[in-house]
Amino acid sequence: MKLNGTSIIGARRGQGIAQAGNSINPATNEELEPDYVSASDEELALAVQLASEAFQTFRSTSGKNKATLLRTIADRIEASLDHLVARMPLETGLPEMRVRGEAGRTCGQLRMFAAMLEEGSWVDARIDRAQPDREPLPKVDTRSMMRPLGPVAVFAASNFPLAFSTAGGDTASALAAGCPVIVKAHSSHSGTAEIVGLAIQQAVADCGLPEGVFSLLYGSGRTVGQALVTHPSIKAVGFTGSYAGGRALMDLAAARPEPIPVYAEMSAINPVVILAELAKSKGDTLAEGLFQSLTLGVGQFCTNPGLVFIQEDAAQHITGKLSELVSASASATMLNAGICQAYDQGLEHLNQHDRVELLASGSCGGALNQAVPSVFKTTASDFLAANDLAEEVFGPATLLVTYGDDQELEALMASLGGQLTASVHGTDDELRRLSSLCQWMEACAGRLVFNGFPTGVEVCASMVHGGPFPATSDGRSTSVGTMSIYRFTRAVCWQDCPDFLLPDELKESNPLGIVRAEV
Amino acid sequence: MKLNGTSIIGARRGQGIAQAGNSINPATNEELEPDYVSASDEELALAVQLASEAFQTFRSTSGKNKATLLRTIADRIEASLDHLVARMPLETGLPEMRVRGEAGRTCGQLRMFAAMLEEGSWVDARIDRAQPDREPLPKVDTRSMMRPLGPVAVFAASNFPLAFSTAGGDTASALAAGCPVIVKAHSSHSGTAEIVGLAIQQAVADCGLPEGVFSLLYGSGRTVGQALVTHPSIKAVGFTGSYAGGRALMDLAAARPEPIPVYAEMSAINPVVILAELAKSKGDTLAEGLFQSLTLGVGQFCTNPGLVFIQEDAAQHITGKLSELVSASASATMLNAGICQAYDQGLEHLNQHDRVELLASGSCGGALNQAVPSVFKTTASDFLAANDLAEEVFGPATLLVTYGDDQELEALMASLGGQLTASVHGTDDELRRLSSLCQWMEACAGRLVFNGFPTGVEVCASMVHGGPFPATSDGRSTSVGTMSIYRFTRAVCWQDCPDFLLPDELKESNPLGIVRAEV
Repeated sequence: MKLNGTSIIGARRGQGIAQAGNSINPATNEELEPDYVSASDEELALAVQLASEAFQTFRSTSGKNKATLLRTIADRIEASLDHLVARMPLETGLPEMRVRGEAGRTCGQLRMFAAMLEEGSWVDARIDRAQPDREPLPKVDTRSMMRPLGPVAVFAASNFPLAFSTAGGDTASALAAGCPVIVKAHSSHSGTAEIVGLAIQQAVADCGLPEGVFSLLYGSGRTVGQALVTHPSIKAVGFTGSYAGGRALMDLAAARPEPIPVYAEMSAINPVVILAELAKSKGDTLAEGLFQSLTLGVGQFCTNPGLVFIQEDAAQHITGKLSELVSASASATMLNAGICQAYDQGLEHLNQHDRVELLASGSCGGALNQAVPSVFKTTASDFLAANDLAEEVFGPATLLVTYGDDQELEALMASLGGQLTASVHGTDDELRRLSSLCQWMEACAGRLVFNGFPTGVEVCASMVHGGPFPATSDGRSTSVGTMSIYRFTRAVCWQDCPDFLLPDELKESNPLGIVRAEV
Repeated sequence: MKLNGTSIIGARRGQGIAQAGNSINPATNEELEPDYVSASDEELALAVQLASEAFQTFRSTSGKNKATLLRTIADRIEASLDHLVARMPLETGLPEMRVRGEAGRTCGQLRMFAAMLEEGSWVDARIDRAQPDREPLPKVDTRSMMRPLGPVAVFAASNFPLAFSTAGGDTASALAAGCPVIVKAHSSHSGTAEIVGLAIQQAVADCGLPEGVFSLLYGSGRTVGQALVTHPSIKAVGFTGSYAGGRALMDLAAARPEPIPVYAEMSAINPVVILAELAKSKGDTLAEGLFQSLTLGVGQFCTNPGLVFIQEDAAQHITGKLSELVSASASATMLNAGICQAYDQGLEHLNQHDRVELLASGSCGGALNQAVPSVFKTTASDFLAANDLAEEVFGPATLLVTYGDDQELEALMASLGGQLTASVHGTDDELRRLSSLCQWMEACAGRLVFNGFPTGVEVCASMVHGGPFPATSDGRSTSVGTMSIYRFTRAVCWQDCPDFLLPDELKESNPLGIVRAEV
């Protein structure tokens, strides 16, 4: 497949203005063809204009037709799978199996939203019929449902080139809501973005929808990204990345003449609590599970377990086996040189830290940009005394923190900022005894995991992949699962509207046959 | 009833530090007893600390017990009705009938949330059961529901001393969600606030709930208000008031180390479109309806129809009767001197405006702080050329704008910022012909009204009292109706949680018998 290195602007291709930088093979530091060029100001303005025009149609496109678009995108991505398998590993260091797995997840998400749109009840239709005889005043007829916000800017993630990028969860949920999408590609995997972007561009055309439903822009976050977020016609932002990047977009969006919502998934260390009795009886199994979770995807998941709280008398039941597994492990290639440098700095910081001890680390292979799995250890009092040990080290590293009693565990939990997940391992007896732990977990996280590890995020109706700040910009939202569509909607109410003007979802005869709350 | 003029801090009363200013009778400019004193920094900190402590219990208080609290508050407000009838008219210039009506609305809202809590399905429980045999990976059990955010700061409104103030919609919905509330009283009706605050304080005690579930603070927005919004333990803000005040709180909240949501209902001019045929056939009825809506509550409603777009050839069918009604109308006392001065300035601005003509105004009575009903007129081209004619004039004034054709109407609609409501009057034939008008209305407003006027906001499940910025800070929310509870909640997911640790709403046996989405 011939990639051409320019932005996708509706049905067109951009010319660009300046080098955006080639993708680089992280295993070799070689530059990959083609050269990618940044979108010009005019191209960005055109993409937004096309999106605004497309919104006039797309906002009223039926659920069935939006579902067809999402299914067509999924089909076209699957048809491009060989191209992705050829390109994505070169750009990301990720293996072919991951490309296939993540493509499956991406297409599965698109089809999940398609099925939800076809069923139709997601719009939360509410009908309160008129009561003309009510005293002292008659009651009007009011009907409400969820409607799309407008054009959405989506920032692709470095660590999920498919499932959280061009056709990832943000794009799928925004399109499902009826919002045109403009994606800002991540410079780490520009070619993967182009392959997926072309699949979407073609799907929009296949479905006869306005071209502005989708655009993909290349360029830096500081120029193209900021220009998108501050453009008056952009009505919401989806972002997955660093705290610094996410906070910068939040601040920009809040300072606009018309502030808009930013849904940024930023950073988390995902505490895992291991209670004593279970550690004593199942130490090896827990150590094995922790090791697998810690090193999955070279530790480059936002749900990576970066922090383990373990009762001090039981710690030995975990640490022996865990050290053995980590020592025997080999390094692997990280997504890009910047991420690897940050990981190495994080390791260096922990290695030099007065209050931290290196428990074990793996061996380093010969390729470039290698992440060496590493486990560190400290005590609760040291952790609480140092304010720098709760910072995320993005990669296959974790910090074990030993605590004495429940009170110290509570203090540890209370010290944490917002998290995507909080996990606990314990016997039923232990969990019954320490039931307040649930409250501590809920206070800090969006998803509470019991006798499991945080990696692996189910795509389903009850998933919450979100959590209090700074895990995300907005703890009221999720970026995974069907609830994520509500990030891009608002309720609108029709009062005494003639039936012929009501959306089908609210018509008296309920022509779509959806579930509605009716009085 | 003896009022003492100090803040209510949990079960206690404050001492205060400085005069917050007495309430003033707007009809006479007389100061009313007692003196009110501002909460000190320590008192504010104590109120927030008590709220944080109370949250640890209140977050897990059952729906049934929260409902009992809301019903007890309503009962105690009704028991204080004579005191409110004696006090509120003096502070606000509003008549006794309004006190009784607004108290009814306030108690009705509290009981509506109580009924919703007793029924219980509002938590949006979602259950995706485990599939241990799924290939290639087993599926975990995930269950989610809505949970409260934490302590909420509520700013009372000047124009609804009961329904949007101490025990108003923000307070009712936050308490229903399980969030402790700290109200910042409005200085215009401090006595009304104290009467209602004492009713809530007593209800919290009656129900055996932690005292910190509710506090009421006196003091200025700049000191007490800003200190509340920037306090790290406050997790959300409800506000009804001016654009300047709301935007200041938005900016403060966005700049916090941990940004929090601000739900501010700010300003709207609520466009009303009158199509030609209906104007010709029912001009007098429309003029009468417009006059009633315009002058209801001395025009001091956020849904007041401040702007009327009318086809130029049909305008005469409205203007004659409307001018007659307005000319025959008498002034009435506004809520306070500041609001009256702003109204007079707004009238003066329109009277002096080159592009605006005064069509009619009422007579001015002898009392102080009188609002004189007034109707102005301009053309679409003048309206579009002047960028100051779309500003809200809070009070019984409206601006008629005559337009030529549909294209000019579209330009008028497109020129507007976000609104709470948009209304249209037309025959069925006209509405069928101009169906794109619905789209223009939806683009700017949260509630679309057909052949009706925007004043009168039903409290029900399908109400949306919200709309795009700057009508509110967050067009994804409503401050009236059952959906308003979701401003103060976030979804939390339990993964593989033992049944004995799950909230009742998510237990396998569904002990509460609520509606759940289960797979």
